[in-house]
This record gives sequence, structure tokens and C-alpha cells, in this order.
Amino acid sequence: MQRESNILTARISRVRQKFSCYKIDSLIFFNMNNIRYMSGFTGSDGILIIGENRTILLVDGRYITQAKLEVTCAEIIEYKDKIKGIIQAVRELNLKYIGFEAGSIAVQMYNQWSRQLLDEVLVPLGNELKLLRAYKDEAEISLMKKAAEISSAAILALTSEIKPGCSEKDVALQLEIIARQSGADQLAFEAIVAFGEKSALPHAKPTDRKIKRGDFIVIDFGVKYKGYCSDETCTFAFQELTDEQKNAYQLVQKAHDRAIAAVKAGVAAAEIDRCARNIFGEKYGMYFSHGTGHGVGLEVHEAPRLAPDSQDILEAQMVVTIEPGLYLPGFWGIRIEDTVLVKKNSCEKLTKMDKRLIIIE
Amino acid sequence: MQRESNILTARISRVRQKFSCYKIDSLIFFNMNNIRYMSGFTGSDGILIIGENRTILLVDGRYITQAKLEVTCAEIIEYKDKIKGIIQAVRELNLKYIGFEAGSIAVQMYNQWSRQLLDEVLVPLGNELKLLRAYKDEAEISLMKKAAEISSAAILALTSEIKPGCSEKDVALQLEIIARQSGADQLAFEAIVAFGEKSALPHAKPTDRKIKRGDFIVIDFGVKYKGYCSDETCTFAFQELTDEQKNAYQLVQKAHDRAIAAVKAGVAAAEIDRCARNIFGEKYGMYFSHGTGHGVGLEVHEAPRLAPDSQDILEAQMVVTIEPGLYLPGFWGIRIEDTVLVKKNSCEKLTKMDKRLIIIE
Repeated sequence: MQRESNILTARISRVRQKFSCYKIDSLIFFNMNNIRYMSGFTGSDGILIIGENRTILLVDGRYITQAKLEVTCAEIIEYKDKIKGIIQAVRELNLKYIGFEAGSIAVQMYNQWSRQLLDEVLVPLGNELKLLRAYKDEAEISLMKKAAEISSAAILALTSEIKPGCSEKDVALQLEIIARQSGADQLAFEAIVAFGEKSALPHAKPTDRKIKRGDFIVIDFGVKYKGYCSDETCTFAFQELTDEQKNAYQLVQKAHDRAIAAVKAGVAAAEIDRCARNIFGEKYGMYFSHGTGHGVGLEVHEAPRLAPDSQDILEAQMVVTIEPGLYLPGFWGIRIEDTVLVKKNSCEKLTKMDKRLIIIE
Repeated sequence: MQRESNILTARISRVRQKFSCYKIDSLIFFNMNNIRYMSGFTGSDGILIIGENRTILLVDGRYITQAKLEVTCAEIIEYKDKIKGIIQAVRELNLKYIGFEAGSIAVQMYNQWSRQLLDEVLVPLGNELKLLRAYKDEAEISLMKKAAEISSAAILALTSEIKPGCSEKDVALQLEIIARQSGADQLAFEAIVAFGEKSALPHAKPTDRKIKRGDFIVIDFGVKYKGYCSDETCTFAFQELTDEQKNAYQLVQKAHDRAIAAVKAGVAAAEIDRCARNIFGEKYGMYFSHGTGHGVGLEVHEAPRLAPDSQDILEAQMVVTIEPGLYLPGFWGIRIEDTVLVKKNSCEKLTKMDKRLIIIE
């Protein structure tokens, strides 16, 4: 507990160290994952105000007891009205140049707030804060390993449960039960389980569609463990595949392997995307309809972004997904995804399923 | 399908009818539930642009196939970059006075967008759009009844599964399994299952805390059925209660019953809150630390809001929760919640659990 409190205090200090660079005397956070990252508060609503000497967590009545149990490195103040609560705290701390998370406050709330300013100046911070949680410390990496371990083991256990007659919904529920019985706190996102032509939708929702011979089975699954997410996708075959399907699988696997082999500190995220994309060439390139990956942490999608137009550079201690896919609308889809920890000269896979083609009988 | 398409077209027409009142020639939606409400698109990212004659849904590559399957009342255009996609569509439609959902676009994105305006004028709409989905039509009400039926039946079935030795997490998982096996598509929110002193946290997360004689068991649970949410809270007793606990339960039940008895079209939401709050009087009032309820629909929390400072008026066809509670930090908590459909002279309970005290042996 003491150690955890030290980690949080250090995170808040790192934010304070940037104040002079941003020409601010305070920074207001609205993103609940950022607030959790710096205060330990796990509720779904609240505001964190970091001043030069004091840190205040504003919460409403639903969360006051929880905040008092969870938070040691910030003063906890209850608000009835969010805007009024912010303004009161700002005046009490005598803040003047107030940085705020421009990516996490809606225009409507901002307008209400800014109308009531006296001589305070609001400084929008967006890209400056993007990498706040991107570098994972040891404690975070160990939680992410545990999350990945639980979800990979659940997918592996599931492979023996997929039987003729089962539906996407059956499989999704079974997967969740296994994961939660093995210690997952909750899912990181609604599981994608897509059979046959449904697998051509990268973000398909499980339906009553029953499994058929010749289907690809796309399973995109992740859990949360103590707040941290895992993210992994396996594509299995049911009973048999055409040669074209097998070739396409090999291609996606090659794109996945090449991209992972290229991941190391200092490489441009766009370059990793290119490694995967180049494999598909002219014939298949148009069927890889999304980016190659994204950061993972308290959120399942966070910075950096691995895509053709990304400006991000991969650095050691970042955790990112590598997930190329091919989608033939109306026919089938394939996606192969691992979550990896970026290291100085390589990367380490956190997700553990073998990505060679598995044919389920 | 034809009928559903007519409903969506009618919803878009209702939005267009307000254009002159807001002095706009178009309205851009960012909230995914509002976009689903008007277009039928169920993806997690996209933008809906309603012009005077044309409606455009912008999606990225992950969602293009899904959008083509789901959406018939809007043109579908793929974007690579969200802001550029909006600007292109705006120029193609030749829009000038552009209303936008100010409550659902972050300041950062707004700033990027507004920097690239030519002679277009952006008109922020916030409260004007608050009640867009508040009046439920027959099709919606029937889905909400089904969602409520599934979750109430799951809670009822669960009562015979709560045994000495079981933990909050066990109960939460069991509840979810029952609900999903009975047709729930997913949970409306992470189930709250809180025993004993944990029940004093209105938004507790399930833990390994095991059940003990004398515990209150708070179960706040809801499912989604075809997108629509249910929301219900039961507080059970485990084996025995003190007289103080029993009296407190009766008090919360009375507050709940009084508030429900007062619900009808035309009543102020703040008045309903007062009906519940008055019951607690001086001794307990400070332990009712949240509002009395909220609207439910595609989101589990939506307009209207039933709280002391709410300006909303309840109207027929709104669906709202009534959920007074008492929370004694460190000791116990009680909450009793039903979801009700507002009618002309009364309301109809959609959630079905009997709210008299149940003692589980």
C-alpha cells in the first residue's frame, strides 16, 4: 500500500514537472483512466485537480466513501454540481493558468465553465498528454502479464469446447465464464466471436449464427485484471478450409510475424504498420481495412497508434498490439493479434496462444 | 425491416423539423447511441451528418461492411481521418449553419475542426438535444420490457444460489451466466454485488468478500436486449438482520413506493426526488447520497434526471428509474430500484422483482 502510494505520488510529480513547459500552474484531468492512474480512484465519475502543492479529487455523493477508501495522495472534496465544484476548488487553490485535458471534456461543459471564469486562463492540452500512461512501469507490466495469461489460457481451454451446433453467442459466453472463473475481474471489451461470413466484420457482435464446416472462427478477446487490459485475437478453422483460405491465413500470419520481428525501441509506429501492410501486396492490400495496432493499458485502446499516418515512435516499456487482418466482405475474415511489450532491441509477447493455424474438428 | 426503416426515417425527420428553430441547415451527431437511434448503425465509432435533404454516415474501414449491412436511411462514406472526413462531407453538402452535439465532441477535436472552417458557422447544441431519445416508442418499450423481464428473472433465479461461503464475485458471475443464457445480449453495466459493509458503497465492484450472517446483499443489475437496457436493484438480507437494519429497509422501501406512486406525466422530476427524500427526515437524510433516478434506454443513464436540482419534467413514454438508498459508511447500505414507464396518470413497473424484504437462509 505504501509502495503503491509512492508510485502514485511519483506520477503526480512527473505531471507537475511539466507545468513550466506548458506555462501552467495546475492541470485538471477529466479522463477517468488518467485519474485512476494518478490517484488510485476507480470510480466512474470525478475530476482530479493537480496544483503546484495540492492535489484535489472532486467526486459526487455516490463515490465519497469509495474515494476515501481508495485515495491517499489527494484531498477528497464532494461536489453537488460539477462545474461549481471545479470553480470553487480553482479559487480555493488560487489557480491562474489552468491546463486541462482537452481530449476528455466536451464542448458543452467547457462552454459552461469558461463563461464563469474571472481572470483564470484555460490552456487546452491534447497531444501533450497523449503518452501520459504509455510507458508502463514494472507493477503495471506484471498486471498486464497476468491479464494476458488469463485470457490466453481461456482461449486455449475454449478450443476443446467448440462443437458442431454451437453459436457465436454460446462460444462468447463460455469464453467469458472460463476467464472469470480463472480470475479475470471483467472483460476488457465485449468479446468478438465471429463465424464464416460474419468474420469479415472486424468488430462483429456475437449472434445466434451456428458454426459450419469451412468457417473461419475469429475470436478477439481480452480481460481486465486489477484495471489492466489484455487483447488477443485468434483465427481458427472449423473442420476444413479451401486452399485460398489457407493461403490467406499464411499471409496474415506472415504479416503478423514480420511486424512483431520489427518491433523495438526507436522504430516509428508507421514503419511497423508498413511491415505488415507490405506483405499483402496489390491483390490483398485493400482487404486489410484497419491499422496494425494500438497501445494497451488501463484502456484497451490507448496511445501509441500503429497506422500508416501515425507520428508515434515506439519506445521501451510501451505495450502495443500487432493485429493485421484480411476481410473479404460476404465470405470470410482473418485476424491474428498479440499484445507485446516493447524492449530496447526487440519485444516480448505477453499474449501466449500459438498463432499457427489450428483446425478444430 | 421496412417498418424499422420507416421508424428511423421518421426520427431523422423529427430532427430536421427543428432546424429552423435552431437556425441551422444541418446537424452533426457524435454520440454513438444517438447515431444508432437515427441510423440503425451499431458500431462503436462514426459520425452522422443530417442535412436538409441528405443524411451521411461517416465510418472508418473497420465498420464499412457492417454499416452497409445495417444502414438503409443514410449514405455511407468511409473516412481515413475523422476531421477531414467531416470537412469533405460538409463541403459536398454545401452546409453553412452547422449544428453539432456539443455534449459529445471533445474540445480537442472541436478545436482541430474549427481551425479549418471557411465560412461555415458552428452552432453548439446541448440541452436542446437532451431529450432526443427520452420518449420511447412502442417498439422501444417492448424491447425494454424484454430486457427487464430477463434481468428480473435472473435475479429471482439467483436468490436460490446464494449460499454460505459464496463471494461477491461468485454471485456476480452466476447472475451474468443466468441472464445471458436467458437471452441477454450483454450486461447494461458491470453488475454491482455488494455484501455487508461493502454495500455502503453505492457503486461497489464485486470482490472476493464472502457472505456473512447479518449482511445486506445489494444487487444492482441490468442487461441489454437489442441495444436497450434494464436497471433494477434488490437488497436482500442474509440469515438475519438487526432491528435497525429492518427499520432502515422499511424506510427505503417506503421512499421507493412513495416516489413510484407519485410518478405520472407532468410532474417535475425534482418533485419525485423530494417524495423519496422527505421520507428519510433528519436522522437518515444525509445517508441518501445520490439522486432518486434517471432515464434509461439505449444508455443505462440518460435524460431525464431525478434529483433535487433537476429542471426536467416527466412526460408520458419516458422510462426512468426510482432508486432511493441509504448508506452507512463502514456498516451497511440499502438500495431499492425499479425501472418504470411514465404514463398519463401513473406509471408501469417494467422490472418485476417483489421489493418486500427477502431473507435468504
